[in-house]
Amino acid sequence: MKAELISTGTELLLGEIVDSNTSFLAQQLAALGIDLYYISSVGDNYERMLGILRCARDRSDLIITTGGLGPTQGDITREVIAGLFEEKMDVDPGLKVNLEKFFKERGIEMTVNNLKQACLIPCAQAIPNPRGTAPGWWAEKDGKIVIAMPGPPGEMQPMWHNHVRPALQRRSGAVIFSRTLKTYGMPEGTMDEKLGALMMSANPTLALYAKIDGIHLRITAKAEVEEEARSMIACHEAEVRKIMGDHIWGVDNETMEAIVGQMLTARGLTLAVAESFGAGALMQILARTPDNSRFFRGGIFTASDEAKLSLGMVWGGGGTAEIAKSMASLSREKLGASIGIGIEGQMQTVDDEKTASVYIAIAGPKAKDIIVRNYSGRLAQIAGRMAYQALYELKNLLT
Amino acid sequence: MKAELISTGTELLLGEIVDSNTSFLAQQLAALGIDLYYISSVGDNYERMLGILRCARDRSDLIITTGGLGPTQGDITREVIAGLFEEKMDVDPGLKVNLEKFFKERGIEMTVNNLKQACLIPCAQAIPNPRGTAPGWWAEKDGKIVIAMPGPPGEMQPMWHNHVRPALQRRSGAVIFSRTLKTYGMPEGTMDEKLGALMMSANPTLALYAKIDGIHLRITAKAEVEEEARSMIACHEAEVRKIMGDHIWGVDNETMEAIVGQMLTARGLTLAVAESFGAGALMQILARTPDNSRFFRGGIFTASDEAKLSLGMVWGGGGTAEIAKSMASLSREKLGASIGIGIEGQMQTVDDEKTASVYIAIAGPKAKDIIVRNYSGRLAQIAGRMAYQALYELKNLLT
Repeated sequence: MKAELISTGTELLLGEIVDSNTSFLAQQLAALGIDLYYISSVGDNYERMLGILRCARDRSDLIITTGGLGPTQGDITREVIAGLFEEKMDVDPGLKVNLEKFFKERGIEMTVNNLKQACLIPCAQAIPNPRGTAPGWWAEKDGKIVIAMPGPPGEMQPMWHNHVRPALQRRSGAVIFSRTLKTYGMPEGTMDEKLGALMMSANPTLALYAKIDGIHLRITAKAEVEEEARSMIACHEAEVRKIMGDHIWGVDNETMEAIVGQMLTARGLTLAVAESFGAGALMQILARTPDNSRFFRGGIFTASDEAKLSLGMVWGGGGTAEIAKSMASLSREKLGASIGIGIEGQMQTVDDEKTASVYIAIAGPKAKDIIVRNYSGRLAQIAGRMAYQALYELKNLLT
Repeated sequence: MKAELISTGTELLLGEIVDSNTSFLAQQLAALGIDLYYISSVGDNYERMLGILRCARDRSDLIITTGGLGPTQGDITREVIAGLFEEKMDVDPGLKVNLEKFFKERGIEMTVNNLKQACLIPCAQAIPNPRGTAPGWWAEKDGKIVIAMPGPPGEMQPMWHNHVRPALQRRSGAVIFSRTLKTYGMPEGTMDEKLGALMMSANPTLALYAKIDGIHLRITAKAEVEEEARSMIACHEAEVRKIMGDHIWGVDNETMEAIVGQMLTARGLTLAVAESFGAGALMQILARTPDNSRFFRGGIFTASDEAKLSLGMVWGGGGTAEIAKSMASLSREKLGASIGIGIEGQMQTVDDEKTASVYIAIAGPKAKDIIVRNYSGRLAQIAGRMAYQALYELKNLLT
């Protein structure tokens, strides 16, 4: 099945909003094994939108549009699809009742403009939209499918997950499953070499993605039934695990911060951090971790030596490593935690390029338990990575 | 001049990268007064890319492509443009010398594949790319222009700013200037009403954009010469300023954090913050402000009452407002600053929706100088806004 995506809305052509629907749907279609060949954006203009849709119908089997289903005169996606299939739009009595109910429940008056959101053409079925007033359309004629969904991601994504994806999956006759293994600490080049043979496989496939929390390995299998796809993935995963060993720290939606949080919670330990490098990235990650009240006490960001001195930090002229150690101990003490992490860095400019030397210190539950590690690299890359490096070090200490 | 954008690369169709070039170029074309009617993405496939380019040539005057100028076999944009204009690609001796020099300077061996980056067709001129090995192409025939630029934004944007934009501006015969006035504290509905008459103007235009740091008002004028456009904007700006008064806090690239920082620096004051709501948004903003070492001491993020008590914070059962005041004083004292800001919030769930009541306290240079303000709203919206609300309050205190 050859697919294409069309996002509509003049605001896209003015660059006023970034079209996040397109990359979402592109990923979703890839996961369904549906080939996506074209992506287009067009403004709220009847003739131009119709031209794009005609062109799409001639070259593709499945066309998915987003946007243009609102109640205003500028929302013309329904009208254009009716024009494409040369059918007449009529109010559907069932959809009208739903729409009236939607407005009544919210105590808002329904305008006459909203009535077009209750319209259909003979070859289209409505796709329910519990989050808004615009149902989607699934139009199908002469072997071509046009699916129209609303533009707001909060309405489009539930509609996709609850209705459109299951229906497309039923049609494709194949099931596709993926599993992501998350790794840290082995360079991409080394992985590429060690996993070379496994990466040649056509089904399941194995792909590498460099992310801020390490390199993710995605195994994807296509089969006729779910059980078969899952067992193909399990075999491939066992091979990958043999090679990667302890470098794999999580799978799928697991995050390093949540895993470290669970380890701390299980051991009855709490964590505090002090940072003076970057913009407090580790603190931000921990502040956003679900259930962090069980293990995270808080963080201190110091922007100057004056602030460090004012907090009572002392270091004996031992340079950056000593400062990081002092920060780790100080955060543990000031915020009443059992473990403290300190991150301190020095920036330099080498050959016109900003680099940094960063020290990560971890002060453990016993007062004298303190480790310190040093990393160097280009500033742009290292600033984002050091927070995950610190979490990885802590995870290894707790294991 | 009718324009369209085409981004190329199979990774776009797999949803693996978000296409940021498109919204950048869409904004740039809008600022040049060039109408953009279509945006497309296509994979690295000769026939499909040629189809898209033919279709674009039939309906538009100016086609801008990004991507596909690398040295690999998958990089086919040059070949497709040659196909479109039915011309033959040849190595250009001048470009070849430049390319050899680029590799020699970096001590890398030039492969034979790279030679195609030195190719041209008769109707194309090379556009210099100091950041990489791929020059752009400006191809022009029968009144149609095709501009090909590299995909990496770090190469594309300098090429656009240094060569392509000035050349397009010379052709358009008109100059377009914009000025943005940044406001805070007046609701969008009220602004819409008060500015109604000014917003009806066709040239200059006035547009509203809701942003995290308030509502931005963009005035855009089109004229034959720069002086005329600037004077049209100045007139419109004066009218807007009469209506908006003190709600305007900055223009164009000014940020609220930099303005507050300059005010603090000019008065010899320093700032510290303590947050326990959100994820330390104010601390992050200040940590990223240029020249912050002159006025910013640092911040404390507390994730629990235990952490507050451990830091020595005391509050007399006066609820959230008292906690915010205590945090403001504590951050000022602990980090040795002259001014402290405390942000504390309480979350609630009302009708299935998460809301928050947030207190912002500012402890001024004199020990007893302390103000506290309360804001409520939906959690998703208020969390991001409170940092700017605090900066706006501080700015008003310093004025």
